[in-house]
Amino acid sequence: MGKIKSVKFKLNVFEYEKPFHITNSISTKTSNIEVRIELENGILGFGEASPSFRVNGEKVEALLALEPVINEMIKGYDTKNYRQIFDITDKLFAFPSIKAAVQYAVLDALSEEIDLPVYKILGGAKGKIETDKTVSIGTLEERVNDATKIFEEGFRIIKIKVGENLREDIETIERIYEKTSGAKYIVDANMGYTPKEAITFVNELYKKGIDINVFEQPVKMHDIEGLKFVRFHSPFPVGADESAKTKYDVMRLIKEEAVDYVNIKLMKSGISDALAIVEIVKAANLHLMIGCMGESSLGINQSVHFALGTGAFDFHDLDSALIIKEENFRGKYKTEIPYHIAI
Amino acid sequence: MGKIKSVKFKLNVFEYEKPFHITNSISTKTSNIEVRIELENGILGFGEASPSFRVNGEKVEALLALEPVINEMIKGYDTKNYRQIFDITDKLFAFPSIKAAVQYAVLDALSEEIDLPVYKILGGAKGKIETDKTVSIGTLEERVNDATKIFEEGFRIIKIKVGENLREDIETIERIYEKTSGAKYIVDANMGYTPKEAITFVNELYKKGIDINVFEQPVKMHDIEGLKFVRFHSPFPVGADESAKTKYDVMRLIKEEAVDYVNIKLMKSGISDALAIVEIVKAANLHLMIGCMGESSLGINQSVHFALGTGAFDFHDLDSALIIKEENFRGKYKTEIPYHIAI
Repeated sequence: MGKIKSVKFKLNVFEYEKPFHITNSISTKTSNIEVRIELENGILGFGEASPSFRVNGEKVEALLALEPVINEMIKGYDTKNYRQIFDITDKLFAFPSIKAAVQYAVLDALSEEIDLPVYKILGGAKGKIETDKTVSIGTLEERVNDATKIFEEGFRIIKIKVGENLREDIETIERIYEKTSGAKYIVDANMGYTPKEAITFVNELYKKGIDINVFEQPVKMHDIEGLKFVRFHSPFPVGADESAKTKYDVMRLIKEEAVDYVNIKLMKSGISDALAIVEIVKAANLHLMIGCMGESSLGINQSVHFALGTGAFDFHDLDSALIIKEENFRGKYKTEIPYHIAI
Repeated sequence: MGKIKSVKFKLNVFEYEKPFHITNSISTKTSNIEVRIELENGILGFGEASPSFRVNGEKVEALLALEPVINEMIKGYDTKNYRQIFDITDKLFAFPSIKAAVQYAVLDALSEEIDLPVYKILGGAKGKIETDKTVSIGTLEERVNDATKIFEEGFRIIKIKVGENLREDIETIERIYEKTSGAKYIVDANMGYTPKEAITFVNELYKKGIDINVFEQPVKMHDIEGLKFVRFHSPFPVGADESAKTKYDVMRLIKEEAVDYVNIKLMKSGISDALAIVEIVKAANLHLMIGCMGESSLGINQSVHFALGTGAFDFHDLDSALIIKEENFRGKYKTEIPYHIAI
């Protein structure tokens, strides 16, 4: 029987290789929660929560206190009835990273039980994906050097963080563009611009002949009108990240015609809402990318299986495990060459 | 290996126990196609298409000619990569009932291979559902007698076909309501009313104190403005059936605010679009019911597993196998008491 016997939490703190600087936030470490589900038959399933106060309002101290609550909620449920467990854990909307980790751990345990990898349970749409790597905010020289190094490592999709200094951001993109010919660019302002600054930003780049594949979250989380304004005035596709957490957020963004792209992160949505968002965005003829918070290989594993299983994403920004210090690799996937992830 | 070796079609014609009369259509038989998928390892998976010319524009003669085409399309694909097969068969949008049967047969074969029922592959949300039974159009006395008999058989959800005669429809509902106290009613006009007739219909019933749980497809398939007009003037929830075939149809209905309910039929959408519609409608905070065309137990089996797996439906109109003559029961489900279906 695949019934859940117990759920255990474990705090794992990982240091970044160097401080990770985005608009209004510098991180030196990430405090993640490993979720271990044990079934009555002894089978184990694992997940990882990488909480974000900035995006989700989550605090790791509060999440750790949920261990007995989660046990109470899902003990005795059969992993084969995983939608029942999804429905129950959907009530954890104030703790989406824990919801994600628990929901994934359920699928991981089911996967062990029926001897079918999670990405096949989800449909096995793809066998391989290509991830980007991210250039965080720094001095102009640091950013250009970082981008050049990433390009030399073999990455062909480069994510560039902007949003704190419009003029320097434009110059940075221009200099990076010169050094990394042939790359694709995801530019992420993390809510740093006003709508009009965002439009200046993309129009200046466009005039210089630079192509941006996705311009992520130019404006504040709740400024849906501003996001729509940017979308309608940008020559490049505009994406929502912080504005798109639940499936309800995404339905509203679509009704408001506010986005071209949605960046799904399991840490914002869990598996249940992420599956819904995939279907909603595709039915609206829009596009999807998948991103991450500060997951280690255990957490990135979740997004790898989700991305391969659904096959729904044009871009994969799954690089957090590449930029933190981690002793033991915990993923059920492999990194074939610097920028490809496969089962 | 779960690779597809061959796909075989077989025509099965079933007679209705008595002519089935709805707006502008009387059926005495249904011509269905049994789809048998054989894997290289010898495992078999079954599905059934029950085509509808009225709703889908399908002709069974044309569908039967697709057997070699489908073989060409999906031979060699692994059922464990079922989303790949869904993506390929999504191109069969002109033949949605065949798309449904093929997609389900793939899941059925996968189910046999990994020894997990289809409804568990889909999430195992429920173990039991309650179906309605349908009163087709006839004389006033016939309709009241049919409804009374259905109620006496134990059904507590009664579907009533209307749409050919507004005044007689109102009187029919009134008379049925007197004879079946405690039942719930789904009233289906199958596109038979004008928007203003539809509003007269519901308002007259409302004034008489009669409650309708779902008022299905009052107006023509493409009259989305009319549907919205009815929705905004009806005291009862208004549903789309003929207007809601693909996930794109449903996204438009939601953007237009045209419906309270969507009636999913696998024969209109296949498994792939039906899964999308479930997520879209729930994210829009609207409601779902599931219906059928003229499926035998083999085809109803598909909808039973879909409904149990997703657990998404407030109402189940899965009665076609109850009103056709069928020698051998082919469902992987059981009918526990007249109106309950369980695994």
